[in-house]
Amino acid sequence: MKKVRVGIVGLGRLGRTHAENLAFSIPGAELTAACSIVDSELNYAKEQLGVEKTYFDFAAMCQDPDIDAVVIVSPSTYHPEQISLALKAGKHVFCEKPLAVTLEECRATEEEVKKYPDQVFMLGFMRRYDPSYAYAKKKIESGAIGTPYLVKATGVDPDADAESLLDSGFVPKSGGIMMDMASHDIDLMRWFLQDDPAEVYAVGSTVKHPRFREQGDVETACATFKFKNGAMGQLHVGRASVHGYHIETEIIGTEGSIRVSPVPCKNLAMLYDKTGAVQECVRNFPERFHQAYVEEMKEFIDCIVEKRTPGVDVHDGTQATLICAAAQKALETGAIVTI
Amino acid sequence: MKKVRVGIVGLGRLGRTHAENLAFSIPGAELTAACSIVDSELNYAKEQLGVEKTYFDFAAMCQDPDIDAVVIVSPSTYHPEQISLALKAGKHVFCEKPLAVTLEECRATEEEVKKYPDQVFMLGFMRRYDPSYAYAKKKIESGAIGTPYLVKATGVDPDADAESLLDSGFVPKSGGIMMDMASHDIDLMRWFLQDDPAEVYAVGSTVKHPRFREQGDVETACATFKFKNGAMGQLHVGRASVHGYHIETEIIGTEGSIRVSPVPCKNLAMLYDKTGAVQECVRNFPERFHQAYVEEMKEFIDCIVEKRTPGVDVHDGTQATLICAAAQKALETGAIVTI
Amino acid sequence: MKKVRVGIVGLGRLGRTHAENLAFSIPGAELTAACSIVDSELNYAKEQLGVEKTYFDFAAMCQDPDIDAVVIVSPSTYHPEQISLALKAGKHVFCEKPLAVTLEECRATEEEVKKYPDQVFMLGFMRRYDPSYAYAKKKIESGAIGTPYLVKATGVDPDADAESLLDSGFVPKSGGIMMDMASHDIDLMRWFLQDDPAEVYAVGSTVKHPRFREQGDVETACATFKFKNGAMGQLHVGRASVHGYHIETEIIGTEGSIRVSPVPCKNLAMLYDKTGAVQECVRNFPERFHQAYVEEMKEFIDCIVEKRTPGVDVHDGTQATLICAAAQKALETGAIVTI
Amino acid sequence: MKKVRVGIVGLGRLGRTHAENLAFSIPGAELTAACSIVDSELNYAKEQLGVEKTYFDFAAMCQDPDIDAVVIVSPSTYHPEQISLALKAGKHVFCEKPLAVTLEECRATEEEVKKYPDQVFMLGFMRRYDPSYAYAKKKIESGAIGTPYLVKATGVDPDADAESLLDSGFVPKSGGIMMDMASHDIDLMRWFLQDDPAEVYAVGSTVKHPRFREQGDVETACATFKFKNGAMGQLHVGRASVHGYHIETEIIGTEGSIRVSPVPCKNLAMLYDKTGAVQECVRNFPERFHQAYVEEMKEFIDCIVEKRTPGVDVHDGTQATLICAAAQKALETGAIVTI
Repeated sequence: MKKVRVGIVGLGRLGRTHAENLAFSIPGAELTAACSIVDSELNYAKEQLGVEKTYFDFAAMCQDPDIDAVVIVSPSTYHPEQISLALKAGKHVFCEKPLAVTLEECRATEEEVKKYPDQVFMLGFMRRYDPSYAYAKKKIESGAIGTPYLVKATGVDPDADAESLLDSGFVPKSGGIMMDMASHDIDLMRWFLQDDPAEVYAVGSTVKHPRFREQGDVETACATFKFKNGAMGQLHVGRASVHGYHIETEIIGTEGSIRVSPVPCKNLAMLYDKTGAVQECVRNFPERFHQAYVEEMKEFIDCIVEKRTPGVDVHDGTQATLICAAAQKALETGAIVTI
Repeated sequence: MKKVRVGIVGLGRLGRTHAENLAFSIPGAELTAACSIVDSELNYAKEQLGVEKTYFDFAAMCQDPDIDAVVIVSPSTYHPEQISLALKAGKHVFCEKPLAVTLEECRATEEEVKKYPDQVFMLGFMRRYDPSYAYAKKKIESGAIGTPYLVKATGVDPDADAESLLDSGFVPKSGGIMMDMASHDIDLMRWFLQDDPAEVYAVGSTVKHPRFREQGDVETACATFKFKNGAMGQLHVGRASVHGYHIETEIIGTEGSIRVSPVPCKNLAMLYDKTGAVQECVRNFPERFHQAYVEEMKEFIDCIVEKRTPGVDVHDGTQATLICAAAQKALETGAIVTI
Repeated sequence: MKKVRVGIVGLGRLGRTHAENLAFSIPGAELTAACSIVDSELNYAKEQLGVEKTYFDFAAMCQDPDIDAVVIVSPSTYHPEQISLALKAGKHVFCEKPLAVTLEECRATEEEVKKYPDQVFMLGFMRRYDPSYAYAKKKIESGAIGTPYLVKATGVDPDADAESLLDSGFVPKSGGIMMDMASHDIDLMRWFLQDDPAEVYAVGSTVKHPRFREQGDVETACATFKFKNGAMGQLHVGRASVHGYHIETEIIGTEGSIRVSPVPCKNLAMLYDKTGAVQECVRNFPERFHQAYVEEMKEFIDCIVEKRTPGVDVHDGTQATLICAAAQKALETGAIVTI
Repeated sequence: MKKVRVGIVGLGRLGRTHAENLAFSIPGAELTAACSIVDSELNYAKEQLGVEKTYFDFAAMCQDPDIDAVVIVSPSTYHPEQISLALKAGKHVFCEKPLAVTLEECRATEEEVKKYPDQVFMLGFMRRYDPSYAYAKKKIESGAIGTPYLVKATGVDPDADAESLLDSGFVPKSGGIMMDMASHDIDLMRWFLQDDPAEVYAVGSTVKHPRFREQGDVETACATFKFKNGAMGQLHVGRASVHGYHIETEIIGTEGSIRVSPVPCKNLAMLYDKTGAVQECVRNFPERFHQAYVEEMKEFIDCIVEKRTPGVDVHDGTQATLICAAAQKALETGAIVTI
């Protein structure tokens, strides 16, 4: 029962989630090393997570013979180079989405990954591992809804976080709302429809926080996708959900449909009071997708142990970036964009 | 297409509901006459409902040859005598529950009704005609839940009305919470289980409005019923539902169960706001059972036209009073009461 | 309490609904006359609804001095002429949607209606009078969701009716799915957003019933609308909802959102069985909008009595047709259409 | 960051759940030792969980200086002796419910535990650590429902497991349905009402599986509790829930109520198909309370590390057994039982 020894790079908010899961919640994994340029993050890894080895230099961590796999949760621009370094060093690689920020880099990275067919490469589209989405997929594969032909996807960040996002300086560098927010929904559409879109049209608006407009972005955007096989996709992304973090997906097929999370319930308790019957909602993505992050990492480790290929591959990363970019272009130009 | 001509007695809150339904919503009925000792009520009937004839004296209305049927919505103590007068005058009779306030009067009235087998007699257990309850019954009859063996019934009046009820002087004369509130739930239990209870145990408490205790009653009461055929019933009645008017019933059987109205939704709209996902609730019985009152009156008229016997008969009235009285005694004595 | 005397033209499926409501469920109305070219329909009106006067000729009914108002439920192509005839004859007019089948006729009819400002004219967008939609509107007007900026509308007819629709020969004459199905949803968007769309893009697909394609139409269509004030609309219409008749609308605003009918519950009963917890769904529009049809007709009669202007006016009819036509063109051409 | 080293006794179904949680999901814990009289269970612990030391003899494991804490998941009859041995050896103790099978043993064990105030003792009422129940408790403590005065508790095992339970020979030895099934619900009642019951009445029935009767038990039982402070409890336990594992609790207070899990949803996905809108349900307690088992063990470990006393103490165990026994007696005798 030898454990897979993992080194992680990046210990920001999401990095910590992955690090803690690897340290405490993934039976077959051992968090052996951590890499960061921030001292306090490395101290946290040592003291809170019991990590033995810490690195400032990612390339050095890759050379560590005590590490079998690398988990990349660094800023997106570093992804291609770090993937390449880790693969060359013979490590299995899990990389957070996006694969890369430009389409060219995605394609180059895709080629790079293909050179190492015996090393596991997995991309962090964790929603596929969320119990509800995984269940939906399984039901669809069992024929429960016949042939899926329309996916309606909604992903809206909590309004409670909007102002701090606007203060952070991130928005102007984000590539736009579609580049920043749509990739998970687009990945779900592709996954459920088993196809790629051929064309996209998009509209946007900014009503609550004018600063999104001032910072060159929009607050809310809607897109319609025409898929190659004739299926369709409706997308709604936004940054101002008042009731909490709202991720909802409906997959409509010839024999039925499945809807995931129309009410983003915090838990199974309902309060009845003067207001009525009230269901409190999840506040953010770590709360909503806590289990999904655990499950995807389990899958990564299991794939290494069982020499399997994960369901999410490098091409999914390229396609997500490609389609997000097309949707962003559609949004910015107001024209129909062929993908 | 001759219409059934109806005379109504009693134009209080519930009387008006019945009168308006008869005047405007029941295809085969015509509200021809109204009886009340309150002038303003008779004016309302004439002016708002277009009633042609008004009476101060119920016996006089019964002699009116232009009336085919009488609807009794007067205070409960008048029911037996009015039923008897109307039947003797050859009229069909619809009487609001309860049949009578004492068991003796119930039994005497039951005998009286039996003397007029060709006249329709129907008692106002309108919940049986509510679309959701009628659907539940139909599903059960179709075998959807196998053999029902447990009914859990909840009936709680809105807290918003508690203080005015306490001010009204009604509570000390009500006969107690079980006599006043439990009859509909008990009727539903009997209807769904197709049996009568053999014994009852009850407990009560008063926590929010001490005045219920001061007025010799309780605010909330729970009872457990053992039915003759081995089935069971759990009852919860109360007067202080904060979120609205809460009527909920679950029927549990060997192959499944049916639950009616766990959230007493006002309508099909849900609000998502800072509080979460909020379903506003119905405020009172006219809102919740609006359609049931229409449907039961349609059934009364249809029974007259089609010479049928209604599903709710006079014996149901006796049994409801009998069982309420037993539950009330159980509540007051703290002992198990054999029915 | 003089009743408004109504003559109806058209006694097909929806005509009967209106006729029965007028005959039995609208306090202030009296169904006095009926017009049809089908003998059996007139017999039905006489025998079942107690209508006194029947006409083969609509113009003749309009000349009847015993009629105050005319309700038009004839085939859409007759609407403009019948509206004009009735108005000229001094009658108040309720007309089922659409106002007319061409934009030119809509505009001409709009001009015609304006000539009779003292006569009530109302168009049958009954969804606005559905208790849930009316509640949503009221909540929005009270500020519950701040400023609305996105409406997501779904309207899918039951799959159970698809084959008979395809057999009926109606599809090729329908003008296309957007012309036939989208007007209620578009009216709701305009009503909730208080604005008109400026541009539309649409896609369609036919997966389950190829005959829709063979008959020159599509089975399912999605459109995205950009409104003049910056708001957005997402529309999904279809003809193959497996679980029943699915009408759902979400209105998203700066302070919250309201969603109407995500589960088109048949009633308040839920069945728990081997399948899980099952909510049966409404089967068709008469079941879903039964109350809405009553309420809109009450409003029409009340407007006559109280000399008020209804919320739904003739311009709403022109706009619905205009926007449906634009959506249809977008669907057929695949291009963005400016409205 | 020294880990708490744990030895576990009992590796049956629930034992494995605890063992796997300790091995993989509790950051501060290390599963160091396992005790069982079954060889295959010890092999499982070594091979699957990486446990270093295995024991046939519980007393021997208690003497192991490398163990800080003992987790007891052995058959209930062993609990008192094993608790005592472990405490004497200076270990912290987590024991699955029930504390003991007789009231005398409970009281003796309670005395024993009190002798070791510096060692953590915790009883496995895991429902208190389920996220939904913990949330309910927190909301209640924050005043969201005012003063709680009625708890309605339902606990029904899946019908799918009934026949194998009847085949297992367990039922006649179980002490009866109340002793076997009611303790979690009773613990929740005590926890939410912050009080103990003074009297209980109970009824039972067996309709679907006559073998429960043949084996001296009942299939379903209902009880009503009168609490010392005037509050009330309604309990429904059973063994034949057709739709899955049904645990539901409602806490009703003066300012509102909280209901946990009226639909025991498997996840956040809903299927719409010919049946209607279908929510699949959880199948058994490991599925429903997976997270609760993790959370309670985290709390046990945290209490050791932080030298805190857990919320669930030894007295809760005595009371649960005492009250279950009273309910069982009420069920068997048909009389009101004073507690």
